[in-house]
Amino acid sequence: MVELSTTKDGIPNQAEASDRVLQILSEAGRLFATKGYDGTSMRDIAVACGISKSLLYHHFSNKDEIYARVAVGSTLELYLFVRDRVPDGPPSQKIRAFMVATAEYFRRYRWAWIASTTAFWNDPDRHRQKERLTRRDRFENFLRGLIQEAIDAGEIRKVDVPMTGRLILSSLNWMHRWYNPNKSATPEQIADIFFDMVFNGLRSGDAAAPPPAEPPKSSRRKARQTSRS
Amino acid sequence: MVELSTTKDGIPNQAEASDRVLQILSEAGRLFATKGYDGTSMRDIAVACGISKSLLYHHFSNKDEIYARVAVGSTLELYLFVRDRVPDGPPSQKIRAFMVATAEYFRRYRWAWIASTTAFWNDPDRHRQKERLTRRDRFENFLRGLIQEAIDAGEIRKVDVPMTGRLILSSLNWMHRWYNPNKSATPEQIADIFFDMVFNGLRSGDAAAPPPAEPPKSSRRKARQTSRS
Repeated sequence: MVELSTTKDGIPNQAEASDRVLQILSEAGRLFATKGYDGTSMRDIAVACGISKSLLYHHFSNKDEIYARVAVGSTLELYLFVRDRVPDGPPSQKIRAFMVATAEYFRRYRWAWIASTTAFWNDPDRHRQKERLTRRDRFENFLRGLIQEAIDAGEIRKVDVPMTGRLILSSLNWMHRWYNPNKSATPEQIADIFFDMVFNGLRSGDAAAPPPAEPPKSSRRKARQTSRS
Repeated sequence: MVELSTTKDGIPNQAEASDRVLQILSEAGRLFATKGYDGTSMRDIAVACGISKSLLYHHFSNKDEIYARVAVGSTLELYLFVRDRVPDGPPSQKIRAFMVATAEYFRRYRWAWIASTTAFWNDPDRHRQKERLTRRDRFENFLRGLIQEAIDAGEIRKVDVPMTGRLILSSLNWMHRWYNPNKSATPEQIADIFFDMVFNGLRSGDAAAPPPAEPPKSSRRKARQTSRS
């Protein structure tokens, strides 16, 4: 897979990317996410980086080139990042690992994630939009495969697989709208809580129906930590 | 509450709104959602409506006035719309009604919904953004109240209330990204399936844990219908 190392601003550290390029991608991601593609100029990006426009043009020939790296680049590595973090084991635990890894990716590359998700409705480049959707499909199909595996293994009841995948992805994809990095729960802990809720259900053991089982130990510990935040 | 009647393009039919104004709001909503605020001009809106720019200016003095009606207007009525559709009864069924009503609102006012949600990161007007967040909070607090009620009644186990609210809202808020009006499942049916999954859990009765109860009859019927789509 593509080797990713963390950078302070959350852009994947690709082989050819210098610190300067990473800084540009990170600041540009933040501007695209908050001001939109049209609302962001090369000048804005240079100012945000504290560099001259000519130095910015030394690295990127135009705004579109920067945008392509930010918006498409982030979904490019997501699949590989998550796939490599799903271990062998019971299928339902693979789904949990899928959710936690996606949340970790979100935490590490948050502004690129937001820029990419914001581009969905208003990316002027149709070809790029199609490419991004193809990558999203690969990611989503990977999850659907895990859900089907869990059904085949008898761990999950016979639910609608695409709909289950959408519920799980919704919980992760909407996180950028409310997640606050200054609060104590990490995205990974939140993903863990969501897995517990969706897998075990909200219904109480005191309700008419039979009680749901206790969630796995690690899940319970994290849920307790974060419920106090 | 504000009386809403459906219009073909999904904008709330307010008292003072003529057919022409509704057409303008609907076309503008679609343009804002797909091209962004900055990417949409008064000229674009006039062309989309098949009217002259002067006629457009007869109804709205500038783009910002149209935008405010589209983006803020849709969250204004959401709370009232949903509140009036949550009946008395067991708290968990109120949560289900909340979800189905939100989905109905989404189906009826889809482009205004999308325009509003797209505006989140890049609305140039901070004051308006704050107003929208206040309204979102009222809507979210209403749901949290229902969840707390269900916990107090022993229908839902002692989960983290804000986190549960976020999981439920995520499933509804992300729908605009994948929902296809040409497929057979309606947003209301999808909301019903999501309620069943979250309330009863995905875990199979064959798994080591005790089996989850059967979902309510109406929920099962709809789940079967849509799982074939």
